[in-house]
Amino acid sequence: MRTATCLLMLLGLAPRLQAREARDPFEWLDRMNRASAVMLLEEDIIEPKQAATIAAAIEKLHAESREPNFRRSGLYVSIEPRLLEIGGPDVSRLHTGRSTIDTGRTNLRLQQRDLILNSYQELLEARATLLRFDEAHAQAIVPAYTLGVQAQPTSLGHYIAGYLSVFERHATLLADTYLNINQSPLGAAALGTSSYLINRQRLADLLGFEAPIRNSFDAVQLATLEASMRITGATSAMAMTTSELMSDLEDQYRMTHPWLTLPRELTVGSSIMPQKLNPTMINETRAQASTVLGRSVSYMFGAHKASAGDTDLMFSGPNEALTDTAAMMRSVARIFSVLQFDEPRALDEVLSDYAVATELANALQRLADVPFRDAHHVAAAVVQFGRDRKLRPTEIAFGDFKRIYADAAAKYHLPRLRAAFNEAEFKRVLRPENMVMSSRGYGGPQPAEVAAMLRELALQLETDRGWLREKNEQLAAADARLDAAFSKL
Amino acid sequence: MRTATCLLMLLGLAPRLQAREARDPFEWLDRMNRASAVMLLEEDIIEPKQAATIAAAIEKLHAESREPNFRRSGLYVSIEPRLLEIGGPDVSRLHTGRSTIDTGRTNLRLQQRDLILNSYQELLEARATLLRFDEAHAQAIVPAYTLGVQAQPTSLGHYIAGYLSVFERHATLLADTYLNINQSPLGAAALGTSSYLINRQRLADLLGFEAPIRNSFDAVQLATLEASMRITGATSAMAMTTSELMSDLEDQYRMTHPWLTLPRELTVGSSIMPQKLNPTMINETRAQASTVLGRSVSYMFGAHKASAGDTDLMFSGPNEALTDTAAMMRSVARIFSVLQFDEPRALDEVLSDYAVATELANALQRLADVPFRDAHHVAAAVVQFGRDRKLRPTEIAFGDFKRIYADAAAKYHLPRLRAAFNEAEFKRVLRPENMVMSSRGYGGPQPAEVAAMLRELALQLETDRGWLREKNEQLAAADARLDAAFSKL
Amino acid sequence: MRTATCLLMLLGLAPRLQAREARDPFEWLDRMNRASAVMLLEEDIIEPKQAATIAAAIEKLHAESREPNFRRSGLYVSIEPRLLEIGGPDVSRLHTGRSTIDTGRTNLRLQQRDLILNSYQELLEARATLLRFDEAHAQAIVPAYTLGVQAQPTSLGHYIAGYLSVFERHATLLADTYLNINQSPLGAAALGTSSYLINRQRLADLLGFEAPIRNSFDAVQLATLEASMRITGATSAMAMTTSELMSDLEDQYRMTHPWLTLPRELTVGSSIMPQKLNPTMINETRAQASTVLGRSVSYMFGAHKASAGDTDLMFSGPNEALTDTAAMMRSVARIFSVLQFDEPRALDEVLSDYAVATELANALQRLADVPFRDAHHVAAAVVQFGRDRKLRPTEIAFGDFKRIYADAAAKYHLPRLRAAFNEAEFKRVLRPENMVMSSRGYGGPQPAEVAAMLRELALQLETDRGWLREKNEQLAAADARLDAAFSKL
Amino acid sequence: MRTATCLLMLLGLAPRLQAREARDPFEWLDRMNRASAVMLLEEDIIEPKQAATIAAAIEKLHAESREPNFRRSGLYVSIEPRLLEIGGPDVSRLHTGRSTIDTGRTNLRLQQRDLILNSYQELLEARATLLRFDEAHAQAIVPAYTLGVQAQPTSLGHYIAGYLSVFERHATLLADTYLNINQSPLGAAALGTSSYLINRQRLADLLGFEAPIRNSFDAVQLATLEASMRITGATSAMAMTTSELMSDLEDQYRMTHPWLTLPRELTVGSSIMPQKLNPTMINETRAQASTVLGRSVSYMFGAHKASAGDTDLMFSGPNEALTDTAAMMRSVARIFSVLQFDEPRALDEVLSDYAVATELANALQRLADVPFRDAHHVAAAVVQFGRDRKLRPTEIAFGDFKRIYADAAAKYHLPRLRAAFNEAEFKRVLRPENMVMSSRGYGGPQPAEVAAMLRELALQLETDRGWLREKNEQLAAADARLDAAFSKL
Repeated sequence: MRTATCLLMLLGLAPRLQAREARDPFEWLDRMNRASAVMLLEEDIIEPKQAATIAAAIEKLHAESREPNFRRSGLYVSIEPRLLEIGGPDVSRLHTGRSTIDTGRTNLRLQQRDLILNSYQELLEARATLLRFDEAHAQAIVPAYTLGVQAQPTSLGHYIAGYLSVFERHATLLADTYLNINQSPLGAAALGTSSYLINRQRLADLLGFEAPIRNSFDAVQLATLEASMRITGATSAMAMTTSELMSDLEDQYRMTHPWLTLPRELTVGSSIMPQKLNPTMINETRAQASTVLGRSVSYMFGAHKASAGDTDLMFSGPNEALTDTAAMMRSVARIFSVLQFDEPRALDEVLSDYAVATELANALQRLADVPFRDAHHVAAAVVQFGRDRKLRPTEIAFGDFKRIYADAAAKYHLPRLRAAFNEAEFKRVLRPENMVMSSRGYGGPQPAEVAAMLRELALQLETDRGWLREKNEQLAAADARLDAAFSKL
Repeated sequence: MRTATCLLMLLGLAPRLQAREARDPFEWLDRMNRASAVMLLEEDIIEPKQAATIAAAIEKLHAESREPNFRRSGLYVSIEPRLLEIGGPDVSRLHTGRSTIDTGRTNLRLQQRDLILNSYQELLEARATLLRFDEAHAQAIVPAYTLGVQAQPTSLGHYIAGYLSVFERHATLLADTYLNINQSPLGAAALGTSSYLINRQRLADLLGFEAPIRNSFDAVQLATLEASMRITGATSAMAMTTSELMSDLEDQYRMTHPWLTLPRELTVGSSIMPQKLNPTMINETRAQASTVLGRSVSYMFGAHKASAGDTDLMFSGPNEALTDTAAMMRSVARIFSVLQFDEPRALDEVLSDYAVATELANALQRLADVPFRDAHHVAAAVVQFGRDRKLRPTEIAFGDFKRIYADAAAKYHLPRLRAAFNEAEFKRVLRPENMVMSSRGYGGPQPAEVAAMLRELALQLETDRGWLREKNEQLAAADARLDAAFSKL
Repeated sequence: MRTATCLLMLLGLAPRLQAREARDPFEWLDRMNRASAVMLLEEDIIEPKQAATIAAAIEKLHAESREPNFRRSGLYVSIEPRLLEIGGPDVSRLHTGRSTIDTGRTNLRLQQRDLILNSYQELLEARATLLRFDEAHAQAIVPAYTLGVQAQPTSLGHYIAGYLSVFERHATLLADTYLNINQSPLGAAALGTSSYLINRQRLADLLGFEAPIRNSFDAVQLATLEASMRITGATSAMAMTTSELMSDLEDQYRMTHPWLTLPRELTVGSSIMPQKLNPTMINETRAQASTVLGRSVSYMFGAHKASAGDTDLMFSGPNEALTDTAAMMRSVARIFSVLQFDEPRALDEVLSDYAVATELANALQRLADVPFRDAHHVAAAVVQFGRDRKLRPTEIAFGDFKRIYADAAAKYHLPRLRAAFNEAEFKRVLRPENMVMSSRGYGGPQPAEVAAMLRELALQLETDRGWLREKNEQLAAADARLDAAFSKL
Repeated sequence: MRTATCLLMLLGLAPRLQAREARDPFEWLDRMNRASAVMLLEEDIIEPKQAATIAAAIEKLHAESREPNFRRSGLYVSIEPRLLEIGGPDVSRLHTGRSTIDTGRTNLRLQQRDLILNSYQELLEARATLLRFDEAHAQAIVPAYTLGVQAQPTSLGHYIAGYLSVFERHATLLADTYLNINQSPLGAAALGTSSYLINRQRLADLLGFEAPIRNSFDAVQLATLEASMRITGATSAMAMTTSELMSDLEDQYRMTHPWLTLPRELTVGSSIMPQKLNPTMINETRAQASTVLGRSVSYMFGAHKASAGDTDLMFSGPNEALTDTAAMMRSVARIFSVLQFDEPRALDEVLSDYAVATELANALQRLADVPFRDAHHVAAAVVQFGRDRKLRPTEIAFGDFKRIYADAAAKYHLPRLRAAFNEAEFKRVLRPENMVMSSRGYGGPQPAEVAAMLRELALQLETDRGWLREKNEQLAAADARLDAAFSKL
C-alpha cells in the first residue's frame, strides 16, 4: 500500500487546482465579437479601417462594462446600439454572417464548458477526499446491507472504494459530455450560414472549441437539445449516486448510536429538544441531489415536443443543473473531510446480528463437504437457535452447534461432521473479521484487494487531474491566441 | 454525389442485419449456470463427477423448459428445487460463491446488452431510411422555422442531414452505453465475493462480457444504478430528438395543405368527419417518445434516495425504456420509408412570406456596401411595403424598391444605390433558391455542402454497421466458447 | 345577451382587487410571536409582567426590522438572541409549548395562503380578460382541430367559453386547496404538543386559520406533504390548461397568415431576419407553464421516500410553483387583453378545407333519410371529388354532387335523392356558418347556447370574486383581532 | 373508548363492500349504444322500427361477445361493421349525433369512475385496518423522529392516528375527483354537437352521470386533460403518503432489532444468507408508490404542449395510476393486518436516547420557574453529562443533576432550584411514559386525546362507507333505468 500512501500524500499536498474564472454571457459575447472581428478582416469581409473602428468600439464598451450599473447582456442586439454610438454605423458589420441564434447558442456552450470543468474539478476533490477517508479506515469492519437489511460484514475500505469506482466512471461521463459540448455553432447564423464566406473553423479555434459543428442547421436548431440532454444525463447520474451515498449516511442517524457521524459542532440543534444533533449538512446534500434531478425533468418538460428551432430548447436548465452539481460534489467533499468513524460501534452492530451466517455455510461445504443447500439449511438452524435465545453468533457453544448439526444430518441425510470442522474453526468462522479477511474473490473486501483497488483509484485520479489540467491549458492557449490576434487590429 | 449514391444503393440492397434472438431471464440464468459449472470445475471447487451431475441436471431442466406451461424464472431459488429433484443435493454446489444478487444483476445486464444492440440496430435502420429520403429530395427548397415562425428557406437535404447528424451522435452515445453495461457483476455474490476462489474473469469471458466489474461491492450494490442512469440518459436523449422530428411533421398537418404527408392509405379516418386524414403513425411515434421519457422519470422516482443495495435500484424501467426506444426508432424508419414530399407546395409556402429578407440585406451590404444594420433597415422597409400591399417578395417592383431605398438613404445617411445592385440582382436575391444556392458557409444548405455531408453520413453509417456486426460476432463467439466448454463436462 | 354585457361592463369598470401585501417569513414569525404572547397570558402560562416585557421586545425588534441591513429570518432561533438582548431571559418564555417545527410549518402555510389567494386573483383577472375577448368575437367562425388536423368550424365564442369553463373549475380546485392549507399546525410543538395547556384554537383564530389541525403528529409531520401535493396538483392542472391554450396560439404563428396575433409592436424582431415577428409573450407564457410542472416534479423528487418528519418535506417548491402560477395567469390576461383577431382570415382557413363534410352527411340523413354510414360514404366521395380538382367545398356544383350521389346510390343501394335535398340546401350545408348556426346540442356553438354560457360564466366569475373578497376580509379581521389583543399586553 | 371499540367491532364484522364489477371498454361502449338507442327513439330521431332493429343488433353482438376469441373493442368504428352485418345499414343511425371522440372520452370517464370507486374502497379498507391496528396498541410508547433523528416519545396510537387523518383527507380528495369525473361528454360529437337535437341530459342520466358537461368543446377537447390532472393529482398525493408510511417501516428493518415487523413467514429469505428476513411486502408497496408517481409524470410528458383536441390528451396513464393506487392501498391493508409490534423493544429504543429532554426543560420552567431558554441550557447540560458517561436518562442520579443545575445557575444567573423540583419529580420527568401522559395539547399523544381521535376517525370512516354505498347505489339505479328503457325498444 506504500505507493498508494505516497500518492495520497501527494494529493494531500497538491494545491487545489484553480477553478477557471467563470465568464458571464456578456464576457462571452465580447470574446465572440473579438473573434468575429479578427476573422472578418482575415477573410477580407471587412476592411482594415473598419476592423480598427470595430476593435476600438469593442474595447471601449468592455472598459465601460467595468463601471457600476452597466447593464451586462449576452444578446448582441442589446449592446449594438451602444457600439454604434461609439463607432458609427460600420461597427454593425461585426455581425455580418452571424445571428442572435448562433451567437446565443454558442454563448450557452461557452458557459456550459466552464461549468462542466468546474463540476469535474469538484468531482475530483470529492474523490480525493473519499480516498483519504478510505485509506484512513481501509480495514475496519462495517455491516453492509442488501434490500435494506443487514447482510454481511465488509470493510470500510471496500465500501468506500466501491463509491470511488462509480465516481471515477462519472468523471469519464463528464469528460465525454465536455467533448460533446465543446463544438462550435458560430457562423451558422440563423440556420443556413450566409452568402459571406465566414471561416467557421477559425472562429472555433479562437474560442477554444474543438471544431465547428458540421451541419449549420444541426448546429443551431438541433444540437442544443442533444447537448442539453447529455448534460442533464450526466448530472442526473451523479445526483443519483450522491443521493445513494447520502441515504447511507442518513440511515446512520436514525440509530441512537451511529458509527459514521459529523462532528458535534457541525450538527444543528433544536430550539426545544436539547438532545438533538441534526445532520443538516447531509440532509442538504441530498436535497441538492433532488434539485439536480428536478432541474433535469424541468428541462425535459420545456424541451419535449419542441419543433426544430423552438425557443424552449435554449432553456438554461442544464446550466443550473451543472452549477448545482458542482455545489453538490463540494458538499460531499466537505462531509467526508470531517466525517468521524467509530470502529468498535460498527463492529458491535455486526456482532449483534447473524451477518456471518453465509460464511458458516461456506465453511461447512468447504471443510466438511456438505452440499451447498444443505450447508445453508444447517446455518439457518444455527441462526434460529441463536435468535430464539437472544445470543450473538459468537456466543453459541460448539456443543450446541454439534447438536444442531446432528439434527440436520438426520433430516437431510448428511454425513457425520468431519473432524476438520472443529471448535476452533467454528469459532473462527463466526467472527466478522474472519469473513472479510478470508474473502478470495477478485475485487473483494480482503486487505490485499482493497489496497490494490485504492492504488488504482489514486492513479486514475492523477490521470483525471491531468485531463483537467490539459483542458484548462487548451482554453488558456485559445484565449491567448485571440488576444494576440485582436491586439493587431 | 456519386459515392454517396453508390453507398446508398449498397445500403438499400444490404440485407437488414438479423437482430439477435433476445433471451429471456430464464435463458440467461441457464447460460450463467453453464458458465458457473465450467468455471467451478476448472478451479477445482467441484469435482468432475459433481460437474457431470450438475451439467446433466442443467440440460434436463433446459429440455423441460421447452414444454408448454413450464414456469420460466430468472431467479435461481425458483429453479433450484427442480434441479435438486433431478440431480440430488450436490447440484446445489452450482450456486457456490454466487447469490441471488449477483446473478440477478448480471441477468439484468445480459438482457440490457441485447436490448441496446437492438435499439442500435433500429437506429441504424432509421438513419438508412432518412438518408434515402434525403438523397431523393436533397436540393428541394423548404421553409425553416426559428422560434416557431418561418425564418429562412433551406434545402430538404440540409434539414434532414441535420437530423442525421444528431442520430449519428446518438449512436455513439448508445455504443458508449453498451460498453458501460457489458461488464460483469458475476461472482461478487451478495457484495463481498466469498471464501471460494471464484474466477470472475473466466465467468465474464464465457458470457461475452468485456471484463468483471472491479470492486465487488460496486458490482452489485452501486453500478446497477449508474448503468440504469446511463441507459435512461441515452434513451431520453433519443426520445427528445425523435419528439422534435415528429413535432415538425405534426406541424405540417395543422395546415390545410402540408408538403410532407403520409400516403392517404396510411392515415386514419374519422367515424363522422369524412374529410379527416389523421396522421396516427406520427402521433403514435411521438407518444412513444413521451413514454420513453416517462419510463426514465419513473425509474428515477424508484431509485432516488435508495440506500446502497436497495431493491428499488433493480427496477426494470431501463429495460422497458430500451424496448420502447427500439420500437420508436422502428416507427421513424417506417414513416420516412413512406413519407411523401410535395415540392411545389413547400416552395409556395416560402414564397408566401418574406423568408429571403436576410439575403436582401446581405446583398445590399456586399454589393452596395451599405453597413450591416442599415442594410437590414432597408430590407425591413421592403418587407413592410410588401406586407401592407399583400405582395409576395417576388412581386415587388424594382422601381418601388428604389423609392424605398431612397427614403432609407435619407433617413440613415446612406450612399446612393450602387449600379451593381440592379434590377436583375434585386429580382435574384428575392428568389428562395438563390438564397440557398448562394450560401457559402461550412455546413450550409448549398448543394456542394449537402452532398459532402450526405457522403460523410453514409460512410459513418457503414462504420456503425461494422461496429454492430463486430459486437454481434463477439457475443456469438462467447456463446460458442461456453457451449464447447460445457459440452465437455 | 344584455345581462352578460352588463356584467362585463361592470367587470371592466370594477377596480382590480387589491392583492394582499405578501408578508415574508420574518413578518409571519412576528405575527406568530404576537399571537403566542396574547394566548400565553390568557392561559396564565406567563404573568402580565412577563407578557409586557415580551410585547415590548417584539415591538422593538419589529421596529428594528425596518432598518436597512436587518437580517430578516423566519426562524425563531435566529431572532431569539436579539429578543433576549432587548428584554432579558424571560422573553424566551414566548417559545413555551412551541418549536422550530410547528412555527416553521405554520409559517409555510401562512405564506402559501397568501400565494394561493394571489394565484386565485390572477386567475380571476385572466377569466375576466378571456370573457371580454370572447364577447367581442362570440359569433365569428374559426376552424377547430382534432388530433392536430382541422375538423369542424366552430365559433370563437364557443372555443373561448370552453377554456373559460376549465379555468372556472380550476378556481374551485384552488379554493378547495385554500381550505386544505388554511389549517393551523401551531401549538403541536415538535410533534406531541407539550405539558403546557397551549390553546391551539385561540392561536389559529388570531392568525386567521379556519381551525387547528386535529392530530399534532399529523399537523407537523404528515400534513405538510399532503398540503404540498394539493398545491402542486392544483398548479400543475392550471399549467396544463395554460400550456394547451398557448399551444393553440403558437400553432397560429407557424402559418404565414395567422388569425390570432399579437400586435406587431408586442412581437420581438430578429437581429438578421428583418421580416421576423416572434410571439415571445406567448412562448414565455408556455415556458412558465413548463416551469410550474418542473417545480411540481422537483418537489416530488425531494419528498418521495421521506420518512415522517424528514426535512425534505418542507421544501419550498410548492410556494415557488404558486408564485410562478400567478405570473403565468397574469401573462394569459396580458395576452388576451391585446390579442387581435382577423375574422376573414379564419373563415378563409375553414373554407380552404372540408370541415363541413360532417354536416353534409347529417343533412343527407335528416332530409333525404340516407342511413348514417351511407350518408358519410356519400360525403366522403364529395370530399374526394373536390380535393382531386382542388375545389373548395363552396365551389362544388350541385350537378356534380348529383352524379356523385347517383354513383353512391348504386353502390350502397340508396334511395333516389329526395327533392328536399335541393341545390339551395346543398349550397347551404356546405357553408361553415350554417354548420355552426344549425347546431342544436346542449352546449354547442350556436349563438343562443354561446350567449347562455357567457352569461353563466360571467355570473360565476362574480361569485368567485365574492369568495375572494370574503377570504380577504376574514384575514383582515383576524389581523385586527390580533393587533387589538396584542396592544393590551 | 367504548364507542370506538363498538364501531371497530362493527367494522371488523362488516362484510367488505363488494367492489363493482369493472366493465371493460367494450362493455361501456355497449352501454352507451343502449343509451343512444333509447334516447334517439325518445327524441324521434329514429323510428320505432329502426330502434327495434338497432336494439336487436346490439343484443346479438353482446351475446357474441361472450364467446371465446371475440375481439372486444371500445371503438365504435371497430364494431360497426359487425352491427351492420347483423342488422343492415339502418343500424348505423345509432351513431347519429355522436363521434369517436365523444364516445371515446365518455368511455374513458366511465372506466375512471369505476377505478376511482375501487381506489376509494381499498382506501377505506386500509383505513379500517390501520384503525384496528391502532386501537390494539393505542397507548404503547414509541420513539418519534424529526429530520431523521429520534426526537420525542409518542404513543403508537397518536402516530397511527396521524396517518389515519391524512388518509381521511385523501378520501375527500378522491370523492371530489369522482364528482369532477362523473360528468358526461356524450353528445358533444366531435366538438360542436350536431344539427340533431340530441338529448345530452338523458344520455347522462341513463349512464349514471351527474350531468352533461356544459360546453361541448370543453367536454371533448379540454376537460379530458383537466380530469386526468385531477386523477393524477389525487393518486400522487396518496402515493406520497403511502411512501412516507412505508419509509417509516423500512427504517425499522435497518436495525438489528425492529419493533414493527412482518411475521417471519411473510418475509423473504436469501439464497445464500441464511439469516436474512427481507420485508419484501413493504419494499414492493413502496415500489407501487413510485410507479404511481411515474405514471403521473409520464402522463404529464404526453399531455404537456398538446393543443386542444390532440390525441396525447387521451392517454390512459390516469387509469393505470388508479389501478396501481388501488393495488397500493390493498398492500397497505395487507401489511397492517399482519404487522407485529414489540412494545418493550420500542420503549427500550426511547430509553437508549435522551428523547425526554424537552420535558425536563418544560418541568424546570413550570415547577422551578426557570426561564425557557435557561431551562433548555440546563437540560442540554444533563444530556451531555449522561452521554459522556454512557448513561441512559433514567440512570442519572438526582445528586448529579443538582450539581449540573448549580453550575448552570452560576453561569446563567438562575435562582436556586426550587423544592418543588425534587428527586421524585426529576425521576418522573425522565420517564418516556410520563412525557406522553402529561401532554396537554389539543390533538396530543395523551390517552384521552388519542381515544377521542380514534372515535372521530371511526365515525368518519362509517360516513365515508356511506358515501361509497350511495355512489354504488346511484350507479346501480342508472343501470336498472337503462336496462328497463332498452328492453322496451
